[in-house]
Amino acid sequence: MIVVKVGGRTLKNIEAIARDLINHQPFVLIHGGGDFVTQYSKKMGVEPKIVTSPSGVRSRYTDEDELEVFVMVMAGKVNKEIVSKLLDLGIKAVGISGVDGPTLVAERKKRIVVLEKGRRRVIPGGFTGKIREVNTSLLNSLLAEGYNVVLAPLARGMEGEMLNVDGDQAASEVAKALRPRYLVLLSDVDGVIYEGQLIKKLSWNESIQLAEKIGPGMNRKLLMAGRVAEQQIHVVIASGLVEEPIKRALAGGGTHITALELS
Amino acid sequence: MIVVKVGGRTLKNIEAIARDLINHQPFVLIHGGGDFVTQYSKKMGVEPKIVTSPSGVRSRYTDEDELEVFVMVMAGKVNKEIVSKLLDLGIKAVGISGVDGPTLVAERKKRIVVLEKGRRRVIPGGFTGKIREVNTSLLNSLLAEGYNVVLAPLARGMEGEMLNVDGDQAASEVAKALRPRYLVLLSDVDGVIYEGQLIKKLSWNESIQLAEKIGPGMNRKLLMAGRVAEQQIHVVIASGLVEEPIKRALAGGGTHITALELS
Repeated sequence: MIVVKVGGRTLKNIEAIARDLINHQPFVLIHGGGDFVTQYSKKMGVEPKIVTSPSGVRSRYTDEDELEVFVMVMAGKVNKEIVSKLLDLGIKAVGISGVDGPTLVAERKKRIVVLEKGRRRVIPGGFTGKIREVNTSLLNSLLAEGYNVVLAPLARGMEGEMLNVDGDQAASEVAKALRPRYLVLLSDVDGVIYEGQLIKKLSWNESIQLAEKIGPGMNRKLLMAGRVAEQQIHVVIASGLVEEPIKRALAGGGTHITALELS
Repeated sequence: MIVVKVGGRTLKNIEAIARDLINHQPFVLIHGGGDFVTQYSKKMGVEPKIVTSPSGVRSRYTDEDELEVFVMVMAGKVNKEIVSKLLDLGIKAVGISGVDGPTLVAERKKRIVVLEKGRRRVIPGGFTGKIREVNTSLLNSLLAEGYNVVLAPLARGMEGEMLNVDGDQAASEVAKALRPRYLVLLSDVDGVIYEGQLIKKLSWNESIQLAEKIGPGMNRKLLMAGRVAEQQIHVVIASGLVEEPIKRALAGGGTHITALELS
């Protein structure tokens, strides 16, 4: 069994990814789709809200309206379109979200401090959560019955609210809980690029060390990948935009992160 | 096990319905939500398309844009909000759509004849399907593992496309395939009203006969309910807008349709 994360920007290559998945069953596929959320938020007139932290970092804030679009796009459109593509190829597939079961339980920041016109203000935390618990029972039941699972990155909050969660975090936490042979993180980059070079291999601790020196986006991915690899699960960060992306990744493509202390 | 259909207009009473469902597990809950589809179609600037049949009947036409909204609202928003409400009450629940598995397979009309400015024209059939097959394996697996199922009225078409299907039809076909003790159809009416009176009991064939004499909406419901009852499944058509709607329905409320030839 493998766990695969397909980033939102690899979804335009979903046909090739799906064809490749025929040979990698059973699988749990966690998908992104943030660009679609942005697109449909605009269509529905939901203005993106950007907040600035006291240290000056600007980030997107998920308010209730945007969460609604997130649920519709992720658990509705993207999830069911992927399931349809898999069924087209004869792959038995079921699409669920982290809310179902519930499978993913997350914690939301109750309050956050933001800078507004140079002044600190405390506002309610957005509808974004950090995953605290993965319940594997539904995933295991479906896998045992021969279904591959397509999982939308939503979680159930501690107070019953729905929360959006980061796709890489969802994939990493699911991998730690299910202990697959591989966790394959497919995105629009060829792997970990550092000082202009593709890094082929990293030990789990090198991955965590490198996370501190590398650009935003990849830093979080490396940190999470390192923690998964530490638990003896082989992680690959590779391109999802090629033919046979998973086969290539498992054959040595991209960046491999393993539990070895020295590579 | 029971199968319950909650019409879109009963969703405002979903808290009471969910509380009542605590005592009626395991269940498969099929939901509507057409009014939400209309609302979000408007928000997204999708104009409802109305077509007129050669016999003069006007009906809503689901084009590709509207199907997209249908998928987002039904499999995303409505489905996950119901699952969340059930989880709030400690009811183990999983939300799927008919596409997942696939569970519902439907046939789409390839072409339809419409009147346009008084002239007949042949146009491609909309993205609406008639259910041809119910695969019970996913439903049965989930029920066997102790999960209650919330099913969105989507189906997989013969050519792999997603189709919207009528919620009453989905509930009736699921009931015929799963053979629950009861099929309870909850909507915003108290039951079958004929000549100003609530009809308490109907045999399956009376139900089908009455379908021809009664107003639109209820006629199709009665026809489908009759066909389900013919197969020895007890059907109740009752209000979903009261406290304990299922308990009341099973205790004799609403209209009961059974396999008895004479009541």
